[in-house]
Amino acid sequence: MGPVSPEVWKSSAKLADGRDIIYFDEAPDSGRAAVPDTRPLPPEPGYGAPPETGTAAAGGLRWDALRGEWVVIAAQRQDRTFLPPTDQCPLDPSRPGRPTEIPAPDYDVVVFENRFPSLRGAGHWPVPAAATAAGTAPADPGGLLEYGGVPPQAGYGRCEVVCFTSDHDGSFAKLSPRRARTVVEAWADRTAALNAMDGITQVYCFENRGEEIGVTLHHPHGQIYGFPFVTPRTATMLAQAAAYAGRTGRNLFDDLVEGEIAAGTRIVTRNEHWTAFVPAAARWPYEVLLFPAQRVPDIPALSDPARTAFCDIYLDVLRRMDALFDMPLPYIAAWHQAPVREIPGTAEFGLHLQVLSVRRAPGKLKYLAGTESGMGVWIGDILPEEAALRLREAR
Amino acid sequence: MGPVSPEVWKSSAKLADGRDIIYFDEAPDSGRAAVPDTRPLPPEPGYGAPPETGTAAAGGLRWDALRGEWVVIAAQRQDRTFLPPTDQCPLDPSRPGRPTEIPAPDYDVVVFENRFPSLRGAGHWPVPAAATAAGTAPADPGGLLEYGGVPPQAGYGRCEVVCFTSDHDGSFAKLSPRRARTVVEAWADRTAALNAMDGITQVYCFENRGEEIGVTLHHPHGQIYGFPFVTPRTATMLAQAAAYAGRTGRNLFDDLVEGEIAAGTRIVTRNEHWTAFVPAAARWPYEVLLFPAQRVPDIPALSDPARTAFCDIYLDVLRRMDALFDMPLPYIAAWHQAPVREIPGTAEFGLHLQVLSVRRAPGKLKYLAGTESGMGVWIGDILPEEAALRLREAR
Repeated sequence: MGPVSPEVWKSSAKLADGRDIIYFDEAPDSGRAAVPDTRPLPPEPGYGAPPETGTAAAGGLRWDALRGEWVVIAAQRQDRTFLPPTDQCPLDPSRPGRPTEIPAPDYDVVVFENRFPSLRGAGHWPVPAAATAAGTAPADPGGLLEYGGVPPQAGYGRCEVVCFTSDHDGSFAKLSPRRARTVVEAWADRTAALNAMDGITQVYCFENRGEEIGVTLHHPHGQIYGFPFVTPRTATMLAQAAAYAGRTGRNLFDDLVEGEIAAGTRIVTRNEHWTAFVPAAARWPYEVLLFPAQRVPDIPALSDPARTAFCDIYLDVLRRMDALFDMPLPYIAAWHQAPVREIPGTAEFGLHLQVLSVRRAPGKLKYLAGTESGMGVWIGDILPEEAALRLREAR
Repeated sequence: MGPVSPEVWKSSAKLADGRDIIYFDEAPDSGRAAVPDTRPLPPEPGYGAPPETGTAAAGGLRWDALRGEWVVIAAQRQDRTFLPPTDQCPLDPSRPGRPTEIPAPDYDVVVFENRFPSLRGAGHWPVPAAATAAGTAPADPGGLLEYGGVPPQAGYGRCEVVCFTSDHDGSFAKLSPRRARTVVEAWADRTAALNAMDGITQVYCFENRGEEIGVTLHHPHGQIYGFPFVTPRTATMLAQAAAYAGRTGRNLFDDLVEGEIAAGTRIVTRNEHWTAFVPAAARWPYEVLLFPAQRVPDIPALSDPARTAFCDIYLDVLRRMDALFDMPLPYIAAWHQAPVREIPGTAEFGLHLQVLSVRRAPGKLKYLAGTESGMGVWIGDILPEEAALRLREAR
């Protein structure tokens, strides 16, 4: 146990099936990691045994030859916990007679490995040889018979759950700045930890909020994925930034933020360390990007003042989003971080948080229909400048 | 008026606001095009006046600099018709005292320009100079100030609606093979017609079916978009096919279909001219690709026997999908066609129809959550081989 910053204390333990659990406490010596998990859980694949090696029956990673991207097949998740009654929430602290995923009787912020992971094994088992090749099409696939010429790979990687508060009825928007900062420390710690694991190429911290986007647990929580490949979205941004640097000698992320500040029409709010704006080419009814004033590649690289200032601006943005329709807004919050390793352009990547909502009006959602799902062409229903205006006025 | 095939007769007219309407009749001399539209409709932008020139207020095309893609902003569509009562369906034929979008008292298949289009102007007004540059990032954007360095463009293009039957309570799956063939003729005709219009680069025929994916009108219908740019999905497939040809000297589409036939585990059904299979890297709970045995770039290039055989296999696939859960399955059916003009690789593109459903079980939908919407990483819940097996057994 030791402090990960002046204000947060970290301690780790194992759950009954071998999964890691890490407490991030706001005071020292909580003793939480010493509370044992008494459940009779069977060992989970990936924790108590190596992950599947990518047979057809197991799913794993499949290569989409028409799009040049990996797809994760995680068929075993069909039986995952689905909207349990409040008194059976697995993310509440344990109480006598009702053990949950968190053995301790209370917590501040806690991270543990997902019991129903899409990707598994990292940090527990050696990297399958095939997984290190994931993310790139083989130079010569030989024959293109099954699976688009590329054999399925094990779904190697890591899926973690981040509980933001032990208060089942809370939300990120209702967190104190102090608690939000503890979450930032957890994100930074886990990003660094997963980045250091063999076989992990990119770490992704995110939150899904709202049944409208398929959330299966209401307790305020986010997730962290360690992918064995560079994700398609990040690969695209790296390629765009490289092309832009080649044309102009400048950094795409820096120029984009500078351009938004100069234009002003899509700014939602700013502080000394962050700018929040609706992108000019917004794809969702409400979409906000939060960029730090000082470009960094990932959360661990954020300065202490930038971390504190992030909590202020993000809580402000989330509260504006909930105020839009005077009801909790369903949203996805996605941290875009640089991948690790020898990926070109990684050092110049601009960390940012994307918050998007599918709600376009009370009772109306944005669906991905034929143009989006078929052709990848997004059709926005709300003018980005109008969305920014509404968010500036929402309180 | 004249036959577009031995079995279909085509006639055209104008709606009251200047939009085109085209009847595809299964018998000659229906006289439907002679029935006037008596509604007092105001001229619509794009039909009675040139489309907006891409000012911020108008939306139009916005360049997403981080992803290198155009996004369509169509804010004026917020007020479009939304789940009207059955007796106010705008896609029914007109009856005395209740004029609809179709002036004639009946129809077989009819196509008309969308009253609430995302893209407009093609076929009515000259191409704005800017629209011809759409789809490619400028070689030197100069400064990256507003809009990611690329000024907004007019939302130039064309959106058409295809009514499959005058029976409000029908569905594509319930069409006769004869009627399905008339729809194919309409798709072929409109693809050729839109391809020939200045400023249109790619034609996209599709159907959205089911409230679960946001369908706003229940009457059986599809849509046809004429895009002024190559869509992101198609651009990706062209790039993958070019890279594959460079590595192997072979055609990606041909080898993919051959590989699926050899593997066999994901085949749903076949006939002499078509193969229907679940892709190895399926992104959706139920997803089927239909490829013709003889590769062609687009629907107009399909032979007469291939068109007839398509109707048989597609009706079979749709009926299997509806049989899966013994309820109408929400789906998107997306025709992937080659773009026009001087796009490299266009001639080698492999036309195919993608049918996907977001339903993974009764009462459970596949949502695009954090991994899909944030990172572009799809996580499939059902093993593709299992989905194919269920579809083979569904009747």
